[in-house]
Parts: sequence; C-alpha cells; structure tokens
Amino acid sequence: MLASSLTELIRTRKSYLCVGLDTDPALIPDHLKHEPDPVLAFNRAIIEATAPYAVAYKPNLAFYEALGPSGWETLRKTLEFIPKDILTIADAKRGDIGNTATRYATAFFETLGFDALTVAPYMGVDSVKPFLAFPEKWVFLLALTSNPGSFDFQHHGPEGQPLYQEVLRKSQEWAKDMPGNLGYVVGATRSIAMDEVRAIVPESTLLVPGVGAQGGDLHAVCKHGSTSQGGLLVNSSRGILYAGKGHNFAQAAEEAARSLQQDMAPFVEEIVGK
Amino acid sequence: MLASSLTELIRTRKSYLCVGLDTDPALIPDHLKHEPDPVLAFNRAIIEATAPYAVAYKPNLAFYEALGPSGWETLRKTLEFIPKDILTIADAKRGDIGNTATRYATAFFETLGFDALTVAPYMGVDSVKPFLAFPEKWVFLLALTSNPGSFDFQHHGPEGQPLYQEVLRKSQEWAKDMPGNLGYVVGATRSIAMDEVRAIVPESTLLVPGVGAQGGDLHAVCKHGSTSQGGLLVNSSRGILYAGKGHNFAQAAEEAARSLQQDMAPFVEEIVGK
Repeated sequence: MLASSLTELIRTRKSYLCVGLDTDPALIPDHLKHEPDPVLAFNRAIIEATAPYAVAYKPNLAFYEALGPSGWETLRKTLEFIPKDILTIADAKRGDIGNTATRYATAFFETLGFDALTVAPYMGVDSVKPFLAFPEKWVFLLALTSNPGSFDFQHHGPEGQPLYQEVLRKSQEWAKDMPGNLGYVVGATRSIAMDEVRAIVPESTLLVPGVGAQGGDLHAVCKHGSTSQGGLLVNSSRGILYAGKGHNFAQAAEEAARSLQQDMAPFVEEIVGK
Repeated sequence: MLASSLTELIRTRKSYLCVGLDTDPALIPDHLKHEPDPVLAFNRAIIEATAPYAVAYKPNLAFYEALGPSGWETLRKTLEFIPKDILTIADAKRGDIGNTATRYATAFFETLGFDALTVAPYMGVDSVKPFLAFPEKWVFLLALTSNPGSFDFQHHGPEGQPLYQEVLRKSQEWAKDMPGNLGYVVGATRSIAMDEVRAIVPESTLLVPGVGAQGGDLHAVCKHGSTSQGGLLVNSSRGILYAGKGHNFAQAAEEAARSLQQDMAPFVEEIVGK
C-alpha cells in the first residue's frame, strides 16, 4: 500500500484504528466452537463488524503459530476477509540477517500477501534493509515498546542517547533510497516520549500498541503522534475482540471499535490535512 | 533436554557440532526435486548422514515459513528424523511479551516439540522469562551476533557497558529460579569478545553461528568458548548442506560434518571434564 493511500484511508474513515487479531481459542464464544475453524469464524465476524472503523488489521503471529501448521492456513484465510483497501500488518517481530530476512519478507509479503511486518532491530542494518526492498510494503521497526521490560534495554545508552533513539536515527539512514515504507512501534504508555520520538522522526508512521488492555491515553497519543499525513495507527486488540463474550460478541466488537473511532475522529479532522 | 544430557552428548560424540538446517529449495540437488516433499527428502538425508557427528540441529524458521503453510508440516516431519538424544533448536529469534511469548513457547516447545528456541532481547524481561518457565527447555538469547549490523546497536552504551554485555548480565538475573536453561548466541567472528562474554557468563552454553560461510576461527572458538561441562554449540549450515551439489550431496555433507567434528575433538577431550 502506498503511503498516500493510507493517508487517504485515515482521512475518509476519520480513524487511526488498527484492530489486533490476537485471537485466543480459549476466549472464543462457545457457539462458534463447533465451526470447522472456530478462529477463522471468529476473525471473519470481527472483521465484518469492525471494518467500517478500521484502517489496519494486525494479526499477532504467535497466536497462529501456536495452532500448528493449520494456524497458517487460518491466517491466510483470515486475510481474505480483510477489505483490500485496509492495511494488513503481520505482527511477527522478525529479525534475522541477509538471506534469512529476505525469506521472511517472502513469507509475509508474497506467500501470505501482508502489506506490512513488525521487525526487531537488535541485529542491525542487514536485518532491516532486506524488508525495505519491497515497493509499497511497510516495516514497523520496534523502537519504544509499552511493556515493563522496555526499560531493560531500550533506554540503555550514554547520557541523552537511549537505545530507542539510536534505533530511530540509524534506521532513518537505512531507509533512504529504499522503495519500502519505514514506520515504528512506539508504546502508548509513553506519551511523554512521543514528543521525543517525533523530534527524530517527524513524518514516519507510528504503530501504537497498548491502548486498551495495556492502558495508555488515547487523546494524548492522537495529539502528540499524528501528523498532517496521518502518520499514526492506534492498535486495540483485547478491548475489541473480547468486548462481548456470548452471541453478541460481534456487535460488542463493533461498538468498541466505533467508540474508539469516534474518540479519534476530532484529531483526524483537526490534524490530518485535506 | 537436561543440561547434563547435553554435556554427556558432547563428551561421547567428541563434538560441539550443530547442523543448521537452512534448507533452500533452489539449492537442493536436481534428483530430489521430483520427491513429494523435496525439502523433507533433503533434510532426512542430511540428518542421516551427519547425526553421528552432531549434538544439535537448528532449522532456521524463515526457510520453512517461506514455503507457506506446508513449510510447517515439512518442519514437523523433519523433526521426526532427528534422533531423540540430539538437541533441536528452533532458530526463530522470537521476542514478544507475556501472553504472546507464552504462545510462541507453546508453538515451539509443545506443538512442534523443539528442545530450544532462539530469542531476541530487545523487549526485555517479560519477553524472555516466559520461555524459561518450561523445564528442560532451552532459550538461546541473542547477545553478540556475527553479522555486519551487529555493530549498529549491540555495542551501544556508556563507556565499558556495551548493550550485549548488559543483555548477558540482566538476563542472568532473570534465569535465577527458573526451570529452563538459558544460553546465548555469540558470533564466532568475535573470538576476542568471547573472553569478555565468558567473564560475564562463565558457565552458560553458547550457540556460535558463523563458522563456515560467515568466517570465524573454529579453534579459537573452541578454546575460548568451551567449559568443563561443554558449554558450546558450533553451528555450520551451508558448509555442510551444500558441500556437494549432485547425487553425492549426503556423502559430501557427512565428510564436511566429520571434518568439523575431528577439528573439535581435541578440544572436547582436553576441556570437557569426565
């Protein structure tokens, strides 16, 4: 997907909403459990209910890998239910070198057909650049995450040079002259740090997890994270998927998605240029 | 696998050899290409040829994911051909938080039945500890890799406190009182740094990639990396898998594996206690 297409989608939907498809078989409503593929049936209903409010879907690969080989088939079929104009992000946090990275890129961008992939930066330039070689594909590089362990290494560095800022700076150099799009994962629970991130990457698209189950202030994220081109994807997973527990789960998911979208709409209208 | 079982295997095989099953469909000999599953047929022949010299096998997940859903089936069947007393390592470099990490652990340790998994440290404690909750399972945490990009972030830090050393130190704390085994990925092309690693983690098992196609000095690695309990796995992938290109590929792989084992045997005899 072109960056301009994502901007247009954010503007027309008045939404930064990314729905995280972290589908836990144990949390699927009982009436779906006799379906041939309960996870697929659940995902399909969630997608149909939330698509009017979403600009991206983000399946977390761990939830599909845990199902064994059939999980990949479920994932592939799930993607078929996502409207083609909505960004699809494989939340896989892959990171490996050279020819291995290219194989991961093939797996996600070509075999499965995702628009985007989350990538871990630890191994450096040759673990990131191969993913940027694909035109109209996106990399979301882990920068500053929202979990407790983010304090272990992401702030390590000399005074004033925490690792996550080094990741932002160096990776911007790598993205020059590459055909793909480079964005970043930035945790919502660090809305103060959002300004520091924006000082280094003023235009990049930020993928913000942590709204909902992980806490995080939605208004602060929209205000500090959005750019005139959109530049923001706000993820919610459990708060939408498991908003309802019984037969009404899809309706409850729709309401949860619409509520988030309506909270974000004023920021899109104010900040995202026409 | 218990740590003591790996020590025993290293001692009886007189070998630190880990065979990397990074099987590239394009490099499989032509006569296997009409098999129902060429990658599986190739892996089976490689395993049968090299098992007398190997103490571990390490499939790189990217090569299987690139095959689509059938790749996971190929991987599962490949594992069935690996003798049960040999360590199996999923080189997946996964890293995600809490419940997601637990799902990856389920996928690799239970659904697929691997003994070990490579893990990326960027997200910190809650992306590593869930993998250590499995008794007799192993985590190999990325510390110092051997690729050019390893200089981008792994040496970032205040004077004398490079990130990779911080990873070693902090993760040692996390492993206390956990039932799993914690080892590290340390690149062979940094044999000088091996002493610095050993100063921090004197007993941990080190998984050393980079011998063979990536360069690296085998003797220096054995001398500086081994402990009285073994404590070392030396990986070779392309140098074994593609030692021969035609009908003789398995024989060539056997010779390449035996040659590496014989180079390592004197170090096992000298260093690994009886």
